Amino acid sequence: MTTMEINKNNYCIIMAGGIGARFWPMSKTSRPKQFIDILGDGRTLIQQTFDRFLSVCPKENILIVTNEIYRQQCLDQLEGITKSQVLCEPCRRNTAPCIAYASYKIQQENPDARIVVAPSDHIILKEKEFIEIISTALEAAASHDWLITLGIKPSRPDTGYGYIQFDDKKIGEVDNRIKKVKIFTEKPQLEKAKEFVASGDFLWNAGIFIWSLKSILTAFESYLPEVNKLFKDGLRVYNTDNEQAFVNKTYPVCENISIDYGVMEKVQNVYVLASDFGWSDLGTWGSLYSIQEKDSDQNAILGEQVLTYDTKNCIVNVPKDKLVVLQGLDNYIVVEDDGVLLVCKKQDEQKIRQIVDDVRDKKGKEFV
Amino acid sequence: MTTMEINKNNYCIIMAGGIGARFWPMSKTSRPKQFIDILGDGRTLIQQTFDRFLSVCPKENILIVTNEIYRQQCLDQLEGITKSQVLCEPCRRNTAPCIAYASYKIQQENPDARIVVAPSDHIILKEKEFIEIISTALEAAASHDWLITLGIKPSRPDTGYGYIQFDDKKIGEVDNRIKKVKIFTEKPQLEKAKEFVASGDFLWNAGIFIWSLKSILTAFESYLPEVNKLFKDGLRVYNTDNEQAFVNKTYPVCENISIDYGVMEKVQNVYVLASDFGWSDLGTWGSLYSIQEKDSDQNAILGEQVLTYDTKNCIVNVPKDKLVVLQGLDNYIVVEDDGVLLVCKKQDEQKIRQIVDDVRDKKGKEFV
Repeated sequence: MTTMEINKNNYCIIMAGGIGARFWPMSKTSRPKQFIDILGDGRTLIQQTFDRFLSVCPKENILIVTNEIYRQQCLDQLEGITKSQVLCEPCRRNTAPCIAYASYKIQQENPDARIVVAPSDHIILKEKEFIEIISTALEAAASHDWLITLGIKPSRPDTGYGYIQFDDKKIGEVDNRIKKVKIFTEKPQLEKAKEFVASGDFLWNAGIFIWSLKSILTAFESYLPEVNKLFKDGLRVYNTDNEQAFVNKTYPVCENISIDYGVMEKVQNVYVLASDFGWSDLGTWGSLYSIQEKDSDQNAILGEQVLTYDTKNCIVNVPKDKLVVLQGLDNYIVVEDDGVLLVCKKQDEQKIRQIVDDVRDKKGKEFV
Repeated sequence: MTTMEINKNNYCIIMAGGIGARFWPMSKTSRPKQFIDILGDGRTLIQQTFDRFLSVCPKENILIVTNEIYRQQCLDQLEGITKSQVLCEPCRRNTAPCIAYASYKIQQENPDARIVVAPSDHIILKEKEFIEIISTALEAAASHDWLITLGIKPSRPDTGYGYIQFDDKKIGEVDNRIKKVKIFTEKPQLEKAKEFVASGDFLWNAGIFIWSLKSILTAFESYLPEVNKLFKDGLRVYNTDNEQAFVNKTYPVCENISIDYGVMEKVQNVYVLASDFGWSDLGTWGSLYSIQEKDSDQNAILGEQVLTYDTKNCIVNVPKDKLVVLQGLDNYIVVEDDGVLLVCKKQDEQKIRQIVDDVRDKKGKEFV
């Protein structure tokens, strides 16, 4: 527990519906990335995310939105969570419906809520700094009608992230790390990304949002009125036995749209809080490698029976008791999980998506 | 069965005591190369060797010399063989003691025997040609006091084989493929090997010998008198219940010496039969690769669930039902057996011996 006083109006929505194909074969449809102890430190990513937010809001104010097929994994992995805190989507509809659903469920319980929305599968290395940033953002969101997103100072021209350009003007009395957003830019080409990094007024979009319940519902009303109406209609059933039936009926007819595209890129009152808390979205094996501990040959090895010879810059992730001998590999990914082995060049890791599709077609969906 | 008439005086000694560390992790001390179906065609190497000799001599005239720890594997793999045909060494003493033991055991039964001595773990692709060669050699050995070794026309300057220089002079009325041996040369340096191949009067030494029992015992008496005496002393117990006890007592005090060094390189009456029967000693993964069927990317793959992308010139040997995805590998060995995975550059396969020693030291002898 940090020194921060936990406000009963603080809520967290943890988005845990992704399938993380790029971490195959460790992540599979039946057990995606967020449910894996991918760092080998004894806690899965969703457990780490949940643990972090225990310093931000009361445990009972943490909601997990996930797919129906992951309900039990959530209940199993998150100690002391109740069934009512695990919101189950019957189908994938991107982030806007997910947030609308959870927001109206909170509205039914506490109209004064201040909310953090965060993915379940990111890495945050500096937890103390993260909590301080969230606290700052929640304070700002409580006193202003702002939709706040967390921005990360870019350390490289990564083309896998969205970028946010901010207006450097100081805003009244608030924390000077909070800036008005000029524009959101989706994954740029490398040349553009280099310009962004050089310019100094671009941040990576971490996909972590902070706002008051009132502010986000106002935004939904204005910019996604149909989505808004669908989930507002549920106010009479949220937190009752009829909630799941309502959701199962509502999702299939709801638009598939992201909160970024549907709301953040359209509203005027959007702000970014420039942050530094050792963030990675763990989008690829390479991004995992970049934050892992390496041996003297720059190999990041998870597995207790791995011997390497003339092998460097590799990421190795194999079962603890599996004897693996690697010779003459440079810059490879070597992963074995559940009897499936993948060896792939690190620089070609974007091909893993295609490989997974191929495996599904040729070998069957039980493998992916 | 071939058209060759099977002579009851024909005997085979199959040497099956090796441990084949270079094929680790498929071969292990507990189950060396000869007991593995390394080509994936349903028969182990020793089974293939045994099958071949069924065309040369009566089944009951085939003797297997192996280590005590492989007795049961021999009995299990070789259909219809009796316990008395499996000669068990209590310790490794190289090929001369092995041949002396088996020869005196045959002497006890049939002094008119003509014998083929062959390793259990070689590949012979042209079986018909092999049988014809053996038949020719056995005929020559029956009528001459010759020790005959099979020579293979070298197709490349391989430094892993022994070479035999022959005298091109025609010998009387015998098959003109039989030549008098000038000199044996152990594994040469590459430059020497190139000269040998270019010269046209060098053959690879296949380590397959044909002689009459009388001739080989005479040679033992002259050149390895101590080894000879040790095993001649067993004539009173071979093929009795006391045979194993005698052997267990004899081996530890016997010299450790090869038939090549102890006999073949010293005797005058040594001949080579120039042969071509698709031979490989399968000394390394590379030699296995060279005889295996390849796909269009020159990958030799054993395993039914292997997917390759941008992968070529690799040898892959994994369990049938194991899903293995390889991307971006060129010229690698990928082997998994019994839960142990090895990835190694083909050009560095000679390092596997050192790796096996290392695995034994660091992980325990149960892995090697």
